[in-house]
Amino acid sequence: MSRDRETAGRGGISRRGLIGSAGIGVAAAGAGVLAGRMSSPASAAAASAVVPFRAVNQAGIVTPAQDRLHFAVFDVHTRSRAELVDLLKTWTLMAERMTSGHEAAPNGAIGAGTYKPPTDTGEALDLSPSRLTLTIGFGPSLFTTADGVDRFGIASRKPKALTDLPKFTGDALDPARSGGEIAIQACADDPQVAVHAIRNLARVGFGAVSVRWSQLGFGRTSSTSTSQVTARNLLGFKDGTRNIKAEEHDTVDKFVWVDRGDDQAWMAGGSYLVTRRIRMLIEPWDRTTLHEQERVIGRTKGTGAPMGAKDEFDELDLQSAGPSGPLVDKNAHVRLASAEELGGIQILRRGYNFTDGSDGFGHLDAGLFFIAYCRNPLTQFVPMQENLARNDALNEYIKHVGSAVFAVPPGLGADDYWGSTLFAS
Amino acid sequence: MSRDRETAGRGGISRRGLIGSAGIGVAAAGAGVLAGRMSSPASAAAASAVVPFRAVNQAGIVTPAQDRLHFAVFDVHTRSRAELVDLLKTWTLMAERMTSGHEAAPNGAIGAGTYKPPTDTGEALDLSPSRLTLTIGFGPSLFTTADGVDRFGIASRKPKALTDLPKFTGDALDPARSGGEIAIQACADDPQVAVHAIRNLARVGFGAVSVRWSQLGFGRTSSTSTSQVTARNLLGFKDGTRNIKAEEHDTVDKFVWVDRGDDQAWMAGGSYLVTRRIRMLIEPWDRTTLHEQERVIGRTKGTGAPMGAKDEFDELDLQSAGPSGPLVDKNAHVRLASAEELGGIQILRRGYNFTDGSDGFGHLDAGLFFIAYCRNPLTQFVPMQENLARNDALNEYIKHVGSAVFAVPPGLGADDYWGSTLFAS
Repeated sequence: MSRDRETAGRGGISRRGLIGSAGIGVAAAGAGVLAGRMSSPASAAAASAVVPFRAVNQAGIVTPAQDRLHFAVFDVHTRSRAELVDLLKTWTLMAERMTSGHEAAPNGAIGAGTYKPPTDTGEALDLSPSRLTLTIGFGPSLFTTADGVDRFGIASRKPKALTDLPKFTGDALDPARSGGEIAIQACADDPQVAVHAIRNLARVGFGAVSVRWSQLGFGRTSSTSTSQVTARNLLGFKDGTRNIKAEEHDTVDKFVWVDRGDDQAWMAGGSYLVTRRIRMLIEPWDRTTLHEQERVIGRTKGTGAPMGAKDEFDELDLQSAGPSGPLVDKNAHVRLASAEELGGIQILRRGYNFTDGSDGFGHLDAGLFFIAYCRNPLTQFVPMQENLARNDALNEYIKHVGSAVFAVPPGLGADDYWGSTLFAS
Repeated sequence: MSRDRETAGRGGISRRGLIGSAGIGVAAAGAGVLAGRMSSPASAAAASAVVPFRAVNQAGIVTPAQDRLHFAVFDVHTRSRAELVDLLKTWTLMAERMTSGHEAAPNGAIGAGTYKPPTDTGEALDLSPSRLTLTIGFGPSLFTTADGVDRFGIASRKPKALTDLPKFTGDALDPARSGGEIAIQACADDPQVAVHAIRNLARVGFGAVSVRWSQLGFGRTSSTSTSQVTARNLLGFKDGTRNIKAEEHDTVDKFVWVDRGDDQAWMAGGSYLVTRRIRMLIEPWDRTTLHEQERVIGRTKGTGAPMGAKDEFDELDLQSAGPSGPLVDKNAHVRLASAEELGGIQILRRGYNFTDGSDGFGHLDAGLFFIAYCRNPLTQFVPMQENLARNDALNEYIKHVGSAVFAVPPGLGADDYWGSTLFAS
């Protein structure tokens, strides 16, 4: 189906709302000369492929995980609060348009006119909305730089929970794949739709921000809804069987969404996003016996059932003895990451498999781009990762090479923009 | 749908045929302990998603271009012809199995037994065949190394048409993304299926070959069949409107398939594969006016129609004058790449869009992984690229950073393996 230039009447978004807002850097008049040729009515299927952009929480967190990912992290170069806020407002309008299947700006398929640069780069013109979600987060140094400078007057609003992660045992972090000041997670069922969205946001940010690092994820791992089957990571195992599911509202409220009383009021309804680029040493892994692989993970490879059980969703039995020691090894990944082991802690995982060419040593550079959302990384992700980093039998086969943490603001009401609860005085 | 461990009765492949062949490095007996749990009947939809592996020509060339690509190039380390031939036989059996939706080896879902490494890495166990094709090609240095050594006794069989490409004007080639001795192109509608296939072929090649470079393509550009809509590249333009289509049998025979009398007999029914990693300088491109973009390409951005025409497939008018000079600029990309300009030359394009993180300078590392098949690169690709490299207005916005050429042997009969026409004495 084609994208059309009119937003009115689609996905509950009023065109007036878009055009009426400030901050978009292109004229609403002078609609593209080609708009008439590109327009076509939205199909029912396409409409159902739209994830609403405005809601109590940001989309892309408990949204059933889409198949593909493009994740981008920006450094901020402007020192002007007004310019940053303007960009966030522009991004919001563009994000709302693109997630509903439209071009990045309300100027038809092509742009503001023949003698201006197109206001949309065009590569998604013929593609469906593909359940695109765009989720924004703010890194620690956006609030206060390493040398203590409060560029944007928001240092006093920095949440206590937003702080660079500690160094974990075995970390081999590449600064060029770590940190950063603004994260945008684009998830979609069509990768070109996700790439298009990031590319267009980066495009209008030129001068104010630049891409610090980005990561393509070709296949989802963890499901985030009971409606989804569990997918496999590049170890070949089902990943995320015990993940928090969107339908478990109490668990989501307890472990994902920041509550009003937690910390900074502007984060109420938000979450914290942790990314870890986990390189898998797939060649040694592939030469390991099935027995060892299953011992390391603590599940059977075929069905994903816990050791000693029959089906994937059977209970994880951490108490019983097996033929040689505990049924689930004391250093098995599932044991160390389990709520039982961690005093009840859970996190919402949302990772993607990646393969980024070869590593220059004859191997594929492949692994898991781990994404987690939690209410407080310091009391959820950090103790979990400390336990895994020290004891996980899987450490022999993986290496954490990238790391970042971001404060993810709440969802948007009708008049909000990305970060409006933070920047509203 | 689940993959099952039996190949009999699916896709026309007999299980006996697989097990009876030599060279597969795993035991056919002792089928995986979990096989029973993994089995499920193939659905009609899945069956239709299988592209036959054995045919007159290799699949993955005129096959309607799948959505996703994983392309890998190997260097060969063994100096033993027997070991290389054994690997090619093993790869053939694995490729045939995987393209029909099975695990890499006939040992059930998991492998040869609990105390052996799994014979399939597992990450595609629950996925459909996804129209996976695996296409092999041999680079110039497989026949004779740079210092003239004939490692495998095939120097006399090196086709004249298989020679390193000349340096073109503007080439900025990275040796780490160029050349190589064996190429395997994996195309599939599900990227995880393509990645899984390459990963498993690399796995069993350990010791004999290693990955020199690999490239993920997230979205197809050129269509190769009249049944497909034209897709867009990251310039935002429809790409490959005038591409050779599978249904144009005479054109395919003339420009894609090597004829018996052309050169080496073992290449009859084969083709030559040229890859170019073309980085797009998307940031300057995105700041260019629509007018300039359309002049550079020679088509309108919205519909893809040639300049002055109305619809995508309208005739390209290279003669008429426009408001200021020729309707189609004299340096427009479509003009310079046209058969009209090149004395009738055509090639079959099969490229993919890529985005590989950022370039360390604040930009996305994005572009087109160009793939072309032709009957003779020296008389087709080389003159075309010479013309483009010298004159194409697009050169301001692109940079060729990787290059390779491979001889692609013909398709496989019932008893053939990859390269059997080359290695049969």
